[in-house]
Amino acid sequence: MSQIKNIAVLTSGGDSPGMNAGIRAVIRTGIYHGLTMYGVRRGYDGLVNNEIEAMDAKSVANIIQRGGTVLKTARSDEFRTYEGRQRAYENLKTFGIDALVVIGGDGTFTGASKFIEEFDIPIIGMPGTIDNDLAGTDFTIGYDTAINTVVDAVDKIRDTAESHDRVFVVEVMGRDSGLIALRSGISTGAEAVLIPELNVDYDAIMKRLDKSRSNKSSRIIIVAEGDKEGGLVVADKIKENFPHYDVRVSILGHIQRGGKPTCMDRVLASRLGVAAVEGLLEGRRGEMAGLICGQVEYTPFEKAIKHIKQVNTNLTRIVEILSL
Amino acid sequence: MSQIKNIAVLTSGGDSPGMNAGIRAVIRTGIYHGLTMYGVRRGYDGLVNNEIEAMDAKSVANIIQRGGTVLKTARSDEFRTYEGRQRAYENLKTFGIDALVVIGGDGTFTGASKFIEEFDIPIIGMPGTIDNDLAGTDFTIGYDTAINTVVDAVDKIRDTAESHDRVFVVEVMGRDSGLIALRSGISTGAEAVLIPELNVDYDAIMKRLDKSRSNKSSRIIIVAEGDKEGGLVVADKIKENFPHYDVRVSILGHIQRGGKPTCMDRVLASRLGVAAVEGLLEGRRGEMAGLICGQVEYTPFEKAIKHIKQVNTNLTRIVEILSL
Amino acid sequence: MSQIKNIAVLTSGGDSPGMNAGIRAVIRTGIYHGLTMYGVRRGYDGLVNNEIEAMDAKSVANIIQRGGTVLKTARSDEFRTYEGRQRAYENLKTFGIDALVVIGGDGTFTGASKFIEEFDIPIIGMPGTIDNDLAGTDFTIGYDTAINTVVDAVDKIRDTAESHDRVFVVEVMGRDSGLIALRSGISTGAEAVLIPELNVDYDAIMKRLDKSRSNKSSRIIIVAEGDKEGGLVVADKIKENFPHYDVRVSILGHIQRGGKPTCMDRVLASRLGVAAVEGLLEGRRGEMAGLICGQVEYTPFEKAIKHIKQVNTNLTRIVEILSL
Amino acid sequence: MSQIKNIAVLTSGGDSPGMNAGIRAVIRTGIYHGLTMYGVRRGYDGLVNNEIEAMDAKSVANIIQRGGTVLKTARSDEFRTYEGRQRAYENLKTFGIDALVVIGGDGTFTGASKFIEEFDIPIIGMPGTIDNDLAGTDFTIGYDTAINTVVDAVDKIRDTAESHDRVFVVEVMGRDSGLIALRSGISTGAEAVLIPELNVDYDAIMKRLDKSRSNKSSRIIIVAEGDKEGGLVVADKIKENFPHYDVRVSILGHIQRGGKPTCMDRVLASRLGVAAVEGLLEGRRGEMAGLICGQVEYTPFEKAIKHIKQVNTNLTRIVEILSL
Repeated sequence: MSQIKNIAVLTSGGDSPGMNAGIRAVIRTGIYHGLTMYGVRRGYDGLVNNEIEAMDAKSVANIIQRGGTVLKTARSDEFRTYEGRQRAYENLKTFGIDALVVIGGDGTFTGASKFIEEFDIPIIGMPGTIDNDLAGTDFTIGYDTAINTVVDAVDKIRDTAESHDRVFVVEVMGRDSGLIALRSGISTGAEAVLIPELNVDYDAIMKRLDKSRSNKSSRIIIVAEGDKEGGLVVADKIKENFPHYDVRVSILGHIQRGGKPTCMDRVLASRLGVAAVEGLLEGRRGEMAGLICGQVEYTPFEKAIKHIKQVNTNLTRIVEILSL
Repeated sequence: MSQIKNIAVLTSGGDSPGMNAGIRAVIRTGIYHGLTMYGVRRGYDGLVNNEIEAMDAKSVANIIQRGGTVLKTARSDEFRTYEGRQRAYENLKTFGIDALVVIGGDGTFTGASKFIEEFDIPIIGMPGTIDNDLAGTDFTIGYDTAINTVVDAVDKIRDTAESHDRVFVVEVMGRDSGLIALRSGISTGAEAVLIPELNVDYDAIMKRLDKSRSNKSSRIIIVAEGDKEGGLVVADKIKENFPHYDVRVSILGHIQRGGKPTCMDRVLASRLGVAAVEGLLEGRRGEMAGLICGQVEYTPFEKAIKHIKQVNTNLTRIVEILSL
Repeated sequence: MSQIKNIAVLTSGGDSPGMNAGIRAVIRTGIYHGLTMYGVRRGYDGLVNNEIEAMDAKSVANIIQRGGTVLKTARSDEFRTYEGRQRAYENLKTFGIDALVVIGGDGTFTGASKFIEEFDIPIIGMPGTIDNDLAGTDFTIGYDTAINTVVDAVDKIRDTAESHDRVFVVEVMGRDSGLIALRSGISTGAEAVLIPELNVDYDAIMKRLDKSRSNKSSRIIIVAEGDKEGGLVVADKIKENFPHYDVRVSILGHIQRGGKPTCMDRVLASRLGVAAVEGLLEGRRGEMAGLICGQVEYTPFEKAIKHIKQVNTNLTRIVEILSL
Repeated sequence: MSQIKNIAVLTSGGDSPGMNAGIRAVIRTGIYHGLTMYGVRRGYDGLVNNEIEAMDAKSVANIIQRGGTVLKTARSDEFRTYEGRQRAYENLKTFGIDALVVIGGDGTFTGASKFIEEFDIPIIGMPGTIDNDLAGTDFTIGYDTAINTVVDAVDKIRDTAESHDRVFVVEVMGRDSGLIALRSGISTGAEAVLIPELNVDYDAIMKRLDKSRSNKSSRIIIVAEGDKEGGLVVADKIKENFPHYDVRVSILGHIQRGGKPTCMDRVLASRLGVAAVEGLLEGRRGEMAGLICGQVEYTPFEKAIKHIKQVNTNLTRIVEILSL
């Protein structure tokens, strides 16, 4: 039987919509199982600096629908040092906290692994990042909201592109991963999608743009920010090839992180919050709770962060076929 | 090798958001493979009454983001008769149409099965219904949009419920299935969810409402329309037990069918549209193209419509734990 | 010079989106002018029962975008009695509160008038109601959000109406006023709008529905809830006249009160919150701050609540011309 | 009595949400009055190049809710020459078109004035621009939608700003006018708003940022694109003054032009479309139909385009008071 009595939760790394739904689920699941629950403010930095407070069921009421994270998030240079982690550990001991739930991405889990190794404290992770770049879960918390935000923005851009017969190059988030670009590209009927995992075939793009001249009045090119070229360069190349085209660039930026979480992200965060706490109670540690084919699965941190940059060719093929 | 040269697509049954994305994908995939493509208006009724027209890539431009179905949908009494189906078949022959893609739910696939049996015509189905009540696919086209519409509406109701300390009973769609109710219930932090698959445990609900008196100022009960009692009866029982509660009922109704499809529904419809046409070209017939764990799978119509009414106890448990 | 040092704010009557923006503006304007500010919970009932607390600038941070009212609202039977009002007055004196800002509708201002009369306390009102049924302001706080919510819902219903060639009768809020119905009717291209201020000309509606048979595939009739007939009766009459039409009814209900306030409602509430506090400091009392032609105007309560039920014939004419 | 029998409508300049509602209103009002109606594609360029077609009531069905303009818009170098305008005039004569309705901004009306002068053709204008920078109307068609789009985006940015304790500099549209910046700044609780009409008081901004250190965790600065400095420069200055602040820049860009028009923009466009056609029938020409204090007013083109860059000090004062 588990001896865990007190659990703390924190959010770390870039914020993502659904983190609040995750915090709520962790707190309430703990209370449901008779535990005492704590929240840590500003990620690992708050752990080092003792920004810890008890949280009851009411403290997470009416937050499931809010973007961002009520616990805030921050980078922590101190937690990267042994001294910092030691202070963090001592703070946990002072509160009698036996275990942690950390919501974040690969940096978060790397920090957690080291903390477990050195201080033997049980930690379970939850995948909270808009990038969907973790193994061990079909989707990360925030990804579905982010792609819907992109789709909504590009739908608006399509309105004005259609009205002016313009070409729009839209840069979306995704430093290492083209997953935001790919799904939003399919959803907005983009004429091409450029992602970091693939080399750009400019010839193919130019041919497609040329072919579309007769039967289309607007064209959208989605570029992931991690693509070698970036939106502005892509736009310049198109202008070179098609001087008569009116080409515009739009960099969507930080709006992609915010907003009310979608239903899918709320359900995902709720399920994984329950799974994180119950995983700890079952004696798990050093694992991320994820959802694979609708079932909760636990994946060791080392494996979760080794997201192989493999393009989903099912999706790239869809873009090619449908952008006729 | 397939001899299919001409394919027609139709939508049938209740409309669902994403049907247009599906139509677009079917038409463009056919053109991509060198076929001639047709659209049938108003479902099987249009097949019987010869409302068929050729469609090119441009005819489906700029519809991916629109709710409803540009081909319209209707019930067809005539297609239920042998004579009706014979006329439908003759119309197809006149146009030289070799195969059909039908987008809809169980009634659509039942009709398709009979049509194949009698007239030996290849048909592939795509799951287009907000109810998510088909086997052979994790999600149906329209479900994700519908639950987001419900969540958006209940978020609004929560605002006014909180301001007035009220209990709201919200009735959502789902005649035979509680899936819309369950996921939207989790996402809106509902205090209870009543679904047709389960008997209502009024004692448990009343206990939960009683317990929440001290730490909550609003309470939301989600009721699927197929539940034995219905929203109004549930509201009356709550009023009986808690005369001092201010209880209101909201029946969400038809807004749940409309609206821009979400990113997930657009991607799903796009992938299945490609799969439907390519399935026909591979010689498939009498099957529904679905997505299971991210992969396209084909399921025979008889099996797809035998959705067993089994409650997802993973989800009901989440409601119970988190509605503290 | 005004001797006012401490002001309290409350919300009363039905909640409306933008009330929070109004509360924020009142609190911050008071602080800007060096006053001490208080919030009263649950309207006049909280005044009677001493639910009063000090509020600083931070207490209203990050609420401008939220629907409902953080101060909550309630009906108060006690405040309708002299004894109740006396207790309310004593509570104010205990806190040293010199003046009140009340946000609500005609009931709110009627109560305020009596309170001023009996206890000689300065009160300024702000028009917070979705119904737009007050004189002395072009628009009330919440009206613009409510009509946009209606428009968004009817746009969704139009999707499904178009797909099925249906007639939809949509009932919207407005017990005494057709203003929500009229503007949302124009905005959604409704074929007819029925409002309490006018007798229904069924002949004209039936003629229009008949005429539309050839060139329209969906028809929307907007009915204000205060209309003599109500949505269900109207639907029955249409069915009687056009048995072959597929007629459906949708009652939008409480979603109309919630949701994020629009830009216009936030600006309106912000301006009137500033005006309310500064009006009190200038020595005003018994008046509602409103916006007329873009300028702040103060109107005595008795006049503000005497909204004459006069139809805006400019708007009814627009419906008639454009619903061709 | 007017001899006008045939009217054409066009959209010109940057597109704005609500233009389609305006086109629909013009076409249907003409038909209501027994006229024959035409649409011109791609603004004045289509007039020169004879892209003119007849439009009936059905041709504008189901467009009231769509962003952009179904008639498209374009710049026209040819129409700036006398020869171009002569060809435009001849095209009109060929179709027997007696009068024009033009929807756009100051460039549109300047071109119209010249065209009237030279060819004696009646033209009425409608204010279609998101910038709200025309005299003779309280609001232009598209402005309300654009500011709501900005508010929605900044609400999302606020989520992530709050989670990371960041300062965000958000650049919004408005080359000559700070009206988009001002209203969206009030609505999002911005800490400061920088507009082209006013010199930036950096000291005041820095003081406010400094003061907010203790009671705020996020800060938003809204900058109109026409501001002398621009978002990036402003961000650099803040970083210089507050090196420990995490400052980010977001340029909202073209999403501000698109999207479904709000209720207010649809009603405005509908009313002005009726007024434009009826103005022509009454013998008006060379005037813009606008809405002032809820009433239709006609303003000569020369006057409408002389929008004086006068800051609404009512609004700048609100920003100052409420950004405590």
